[in-house]
Amino acid sequence: MSSKPLPSLLPVTDRTRHRRLREQGSLERAELEAILDAGFVCHLGVVIEGRPVVVPTVYGRDERWLYLHGAVAGRSLAGDLPVCVTVTHVDGLVLARSVFEHGVNYRSAMIHGDARKVTDPEEKLEGLRRLTEHSAPGQWSYARRPNRRELAATALLAVSLREASVKIRTGAPEDGDGPDAELGLWAGVLPLTSLWGEPVADPALPADTPVPGHIARRAGTRHG
Amino acid sequence: MSSKPLPSLLPVTDRTRHRRLREQGSLERAELEAILDAGFVCHLGVVIEGRPVVVPTVYGRDERWLYLHGAVAGRSLAGDLPVCVTVTHVDGLVLARSVFEHGVNYRSAMIHGDARKVTDPEEKLEGLRRLTEHSAPGQWSYARRPNRRELAATALLAVSLREASVKIRTGAPEDGDGPDAELGLWAGVLPLTSLWGEPVADPALPADTPVPGHIARRAGTRHG
Repeated sequence: MSSKPLPSLLPVTDRTRHRRLREQGSLERAELEAILDAGFVCHLGVVIEGRPVVVPTVYGRDERWLYLHGAVAGRSLAGDLPVCVTVTHVDGLVLARSVFEHGVNYRSAMIHGDARKVTDPEEKLEGLRRLTEHSAPGQWSYARRPNRRELAATALLAVSLREASVKIRTGAPEDGDGPDAELGLWAGVLPLTSLWGEPVADPALPADTPVPGHIARRAGTRHG
Repeated sequence: MSSKPLPSLLPVTDRTRHRRLREQGSLERAELEAILDAGFVCHLGVVIEGRPVVVPTVYGRDERWLYLHGAVAGRSLAGDLPVCVTVTHVDGLVLARSVFEHGVNYRSAMIHGDARKVTDPEEKLEGLRRLTEHSAPGQWSYARRPNRRELAATALLAVSLREASVKIRTGAPEDGDGPDAELGLWAGVLPLTSLWGEPVADPALPADTPVPGHIARRAGTRHG
């Protein structure tokens, strides 16, 4: 756990090499971080008894580590756990002239590594802070922080951000300059956008409880 | 591949049994189908050389089978491939009085099975039709359908919808009737909604190409 910064270019390994044509791979660590920072739910893949299991969970990060709520995978974790963590933002449907050229505009990050269970109380608290602030900025200083019992009851996993691959597809379909362009069909992109709505108060709250600014301000803003 | 309908209750197996408290499991096949029909991108988990790999891909379905674009997993597929396919819709952030009770409102379906590569041309065409119509209803009869060469170049996987588990969390945080309610903090849900935007025409299109109704009508409607 040295404090040496991770290289700004992502490594090319057997697992991260890009194989497909139409998607754009990126080796920029900054792109990886941008994709991670735009979301808060990932899909965590583990192997259980030889079979894959993929669960959605929340995450946060610092410069070197991705922190994950590890409820499922963490249950019986002794030693490091091979994981693949994927974060995907879907930006739109690519509607081409031919069905074959249909696709999706998206940004996706895939992190390969061995997850370790975070046991050091200080790192655990800091990891939970990152995770909380990642999905709900401002909540760590607003809500009641975990006490010792809660901290012990929380399973937190850490995965190094060293080995990752990024794929991004943007823009129009690719059959605009081929023979299918003669068909006279409409082609383009149907964008998909994720938006935060107006906060919905817990019915158990006294009616005059003010919505704090850090929550109210997110309503109407874009997510992803 | 009998045509007997799948049971309306999902099976409880070691893989699908619900273990956590705050999430609601569902055994209704109708809930599984509703979650699948609300989305079009899944996360496909496979095991490659003993390690998990999770890739986003598009899917469609009929009553018995989930059909997936199998670009990554399908490359070197001989025989059946153990997979876990997860579809998740994030509906909001659950902001509780305590960090410990924070969570996410979501609907998630997880399908466990052995994927087979679809080789029969008739099933492949029908699977691709389902997949295309699932993400872009109306496109199968509007766009140019795959020719023989394209059909051969497309890797399609099929996974049985028999073994699946569904998890749903809705509603307010759960610390409204505990001691933390006395803290006087705001608590509730910040909803997240996914919306289709206005179609963006391919710049290569002649300016007067009309947007077909089945695409134009989706603008402004909710996804997920």
